[in-house]
Amino acid sequence: MAQKPSIPKGTRDFSPAEVAKRNYIIQTIKKHFETYGFQPIETPSFENSETLMGKYGDEGDRLIFKILNSGDFISKVDDVTYSSKNSNSLTPKISEKALRYDLTVPFARYVVMHQNEIDFPFKRYQIQPVWRADRPQKGRFREFYQCDADVVGADSLLQEVEFVQLYDAVFTDLGLTGATIKINNRKILSGIAEVIGAKHLLIDFTVALDKLDKIGEEKVKAEMLEKGISESAIAKAQPLFSMSGSASEQLAELKTLLSESEIGLQGVADLDEIITTVEAIGLQSASLQLDVTLARGLNYYTGAIFEVAAPEGVSMGSIGGGGRYDDLTGIFGLKDVSGVGISFGLDRIYLVLEELNLFPDSLDTSLDVLCLNFGKEEALAGLRLVSSLRKAGLRADLYPSDTKVQKQFKYADKRGVPYVILLGEQELTNGNFVVKNMKSGDQKAYKLDEVNQFAEALKADF
Amino acid sequence: MAQKPSIPKGTRDFSPAEVAKRNYIIQTIKKHFETYGFQPIETPSFENSETLMGKYGDEGDRLIFKILNSGDFISKVDDVTYSSKNSNSLTPKISEKALRYDLTVPFARYVVMHQNEIDFPFKRYQIQPVWRADRPQKGRFREFYQCDADVVGADSLLQEVEFVQLYDAVFTDLGLTGATIKINNRKILSGIAEVIGAKHLLIDFTVALDKLDKIGEEKVKAEMLEKGISESAIAKAQPLFSMSGSASEQLAELKTLLSESEIGLQGVADLDEIITTVEAIGLQSASLQLDVTLARGLNYYTGAIFEVAAPEGVSMGSIGGGGRYDDLTGIFGLKDVSGVGISFGLDRIYLVLEELNLFPDSLDTSLDVLCLNFGKEEALAGLRLVSSLRKAGLRADLYPSDTKVQKQFKYADKRGVPYVILLGEQELTNGNFVVKNMKSGDQKAYKLDEVNQFAEALKADF
Repeated sequence: MAQKPSIPKGTRDFSPAEVAKRNYIIQTIKKHFETYGFQPIETPSFENSETLMGKYGDEGDRLIFKILNSGDFISKVDDVTYSSKNSNSLTPKISEKALRYDLTVPFARYVVMHQNEIDFPFKRYQIQPVWRADRPQKGRFREFYQCDADVVGADSLLQEVEFVQLYDAVFTDLGLTGATIKINNRKILSGIAEVIGAKHLLIDFTVALDKLDKIGEEKVKAEMLEKGISESAIAKAQPLFSMSGSASEQLAELKTLLSESEIGLQGVADLDEIITTVEAIGLQSASLQLDVTLARGLNYYTGAIFEVAAPEGVSMGSIGGGGRYDDLTGIFGLKDVSGVGISFGLDRIYLVLEELNLFPDSLDTSLDVLCLNFGKEEALAGLRLVSSLRKAGLRADLYPSDTKVQKQFKYADKRGVPYVILLGEQELTNGNFVVKNMKSGDQKAYKLDEVNQFAEALKADF
Repeated sequence: MAQKPSIPKGTRDFSPAEVAKRNYIIQTIKKHFETYGFQPIETPSFENSETLMGKYGDEGDRLIFKILNSGDFISKVDDVTYSSKNSNSLTPKISEKALRYDLTVPFARYVVMHQNEIDFPFKRYQIQPVWRADRPQKGRFREFYQCDADVVGADSLLQEVEFVQLYDAVFTDLGLTGATIKINNRKILSGIAEVIGAKHLLIDFTVALDKLDKIGEEKVKAEMLEKGISESAIAKAQPLFSMSGSASEQLAELKTLLSESEIGLQGVADLDEIITTVEAIGLQSASLQLDVTLARGLNYYTGAIFEVAAPEGVSMGSIGGGGRYDDLTGIFGLKDVSGVGISFGLDRIYLVLEELNLFPDSLDTSLDVLCLNFGKEEALAGLRLVSSLRKAGLRADLYPSDTKVQKQFKYADKRGVPYVILLGEQELTNGNFVVKNMKSGDQKAYKLDEVNQFAEALKADF
C-alpha cells in the first residue's frame, strides 16, 4: 500500500517561491562577503564524531545528530558494552560520524588541516546547513543554514571595524534600514567581574547578565545572588544596569568603574578604537550601539562581542551575532591563532523581510514568457521562438500540450507570467506572433523573424 | 591533548579555488534551468526512513546513511530484538531518519505532499548534496551534489526535445563542445525482448546490454546466456550489436526488426518524433545520437533514456543522464503522474573542464584590489578608500597590519590580486594614492577624491 508521506519534525520543504526569497537573502550576503574580500569554503556535512564531540558542552553533545555505522555495526560491539544496554556507552561503538552542528568547529578543523595551503590572514565565508536535535518550535528548526564570515590570523581591530561595516552594507542592501549593531567586549565583562570581586564567577555573572533584555534587572540580580555572587558585588556592578548616554559617555563611565582592572581598561580602549573608527568612516543605515550588558551565551569569545537587533517595531530576537575568540584552532593543535567573525541569521532575516514587506516584487516572477500551444505545427514554431528567447537569456516556456486555451491561460495566471505569446494557425500563416501583456491586457504583434527585437524590448522592460 | 584532525573517508573539503570552480558550473546549469522555465525547490537533508527504504533495491537500502535516534534510544528497543544482537532487526528500532540518497524520491514525496499547491505541469530543478555509503574511489564520493531538472504531469514528447536542447545549452555555455547526447527508448528494449522471445527476462537482458561499452559484445552475450536467454534469442537480437548509420537509417532498421511488437513500434515512433523535432530546431554544439544499446542500470525508466558522453578524447564516463518514468509518484499514492528528467554530473563535469582547461581565468581572482597598510593614519585613509571601492561593487581589502611591505606584497602575489594600492605618508600628504598593476608593474596615481573614477576604470577592465 502507498505510504502517506511526511517529513521529519523540525525540517522543511522549500517551495519555488520560498527558495527564491531565501536565495535573494543568501546572494545579497554573499555579494558583500566577497566585496569585503572573504572567500568561500565548504566542508563535509558530517565530520568524524571526535571532531565535534566535547566542543559544545554536554547539552551540545546531546543535540548532535549521530550517524549509524554502515554494515553489520552490532557485531563490532563488545559483549560487556552490549550487555550494559546503555545508550551513552553504546553510541561511540556504533556511530563514528555526526552531522555538522555549526560552521565554526569545522572551520577550525579546516584551518588546521590546510594550514600549509592557506595564506594568512585568511578571510573565509561559509554558507551551509547545520543540524541540531533541538526541540522544534517557532523559528527554530533541526536543519537550518548558517551564514558565517570569519578572519583568522589577524589581531588588528580593523577587522572588528570591517564587520560592523559589513553588517551595515548587507542590511542596507536588503532594505532593512534601522538595524542596531550592539557591541561589547568580553574584557569589559572580565574587568567588571574583577573589580566587583567575582572573578571566579565570571561565567555565571555573564550568563545572568545576558538575560537582562528578556527577564529584567530584578531577576538577573536574583540569579546572580543564587549563583553565589554577593549582594555587595552586585551593588558595585549597579552602573551596568543603568548605563546610558552616547558611546563616548558610557566609555568614560566604564573607564572610571574599571580603573583598577588592567583587562577592563584594555576592553575600554579596544571599544573606543573600534567605535571611533566606525564613526570616522560612517555607516549607511545601521547604528552602532555600545551595550555593556551584551554577553551572549557562548563562552569562547575573548574580545569584541556583536549582536544585531532588527529595526524597532519588529519583534524578533537578534538577526546576527559574532565576536573575537583568541584561540580558535587550539583544540586541534594549532596555537595562538586569533579569529573574529560574524554570522547572519537567515531564517530570522527572512521573517523580518516578510513582515516589513521588503522582498522585491521581481522575486514573484519565475517565468517571463509563456507561449501557448495550439497544435503540432504551431507548437514547433512556438518551440523555435521559445528557444530564441531562452538564448537571449529570458525565462521562456511553451505549454506542453494543445489543451483548451482557457486552461493554458489559467496556468499562465497562476505562475504569474507577465507575457503570454499567441502563435496559432492565423499567426503562422502571417509569419508573426502576438504578445499579450497579462497585466494591462494590451496585445502587440511581432514578426517571427524579429524575435530578437522582442527579446530586447522585454529585457529592457525588467 | 589536541587531536590531529581528519575528515571521514569519501568526503571532501573544498578550498576557495575549488568552490569558485564548482559554483561556476552550478551557476551555469542553474541559469539554463531557469531560462527553460524550471523552478527550484529544496527538500530536507534527511527524510523519514520509510520514505527512502525499499526504493533503491537491497543494495541501495544498505548504502543509505541512517541517523541514530536522539536521547536514550536503546531503552526503546524491546528485549527480544535486543537479545538477537542483529544489526538488521535493530536498525529500525534505533533509527527513524536517513540521509537523502538521491533527489528523485524526495521530489516524488514533495509532489505528493504539495500536490494541492502545485500548478501542473510542474517543472522543478533541485541542486543539493546526496549521501551514499559506497566504497569511495576515484571520482566516487560519499557526499556529492546532484543537479536535477524534472517535469511532472506532462506527457508530451516536447519535454524530451527540450531536455536535449537543455543539455546542449549548458554544455555549449561551459565551452564543452562536442558532447554526445545518446538517446534510446525503453519501449524499444521491451520490444526487442518481446520479439526475441525473452520478454520475461527483460531486466536481465537490459542489464547485460547496458554493459556493451564496458565489456564488449562477447561478454554481453555470455552474460545473457548465463541469465537464461537462449542462443537463438540472442541471435535474433544480433542487429542491436551491429547497428550503425544515421538515426533515420537505424530507425528504419528497427521498424523492420520490431514489426511484430506494438510497444517496440511505439518506441520507434516516439524516438522518430523527438529526433526529427530536435533536428528541425538544431543544436548549438552537441550532437544527438540514437544508441539502441543504451539501457542504464536503473529500471524505472519507461520511455526515453538519455546519457551524455564527454567530447571524444576525454576518458570519462557519462556526464549526464535521465529519462522518462511513467509512475513517479505512485509509491506515495498519487497515480498516473508521468515524470521526465535529466541530471548533470557535477564532479565529472568538473574533471572534464579541468582536463580540457576550460575554466575561465577570471575564477582565479578572488580579490580585485588590495590596499597596503603603512600605519594607523594611513590605514584609516585606506579603509575609507576600500569602503568606497566595495560600495562600487569591487572586491577590495586593506591589509590588516602595517607589517613589512615586502610581506604584504607577497600576500598580494599569493592571492593573485591584480591591483595593489599604495597609500603611505607621502601620498596622504599629497591627497592621492598609487595603483600598481601587478602584472605589468605599471603604476598610476589617482586623487583620493577621485576614487569613483578609479573604480569605474577598474570595472571596465574586467
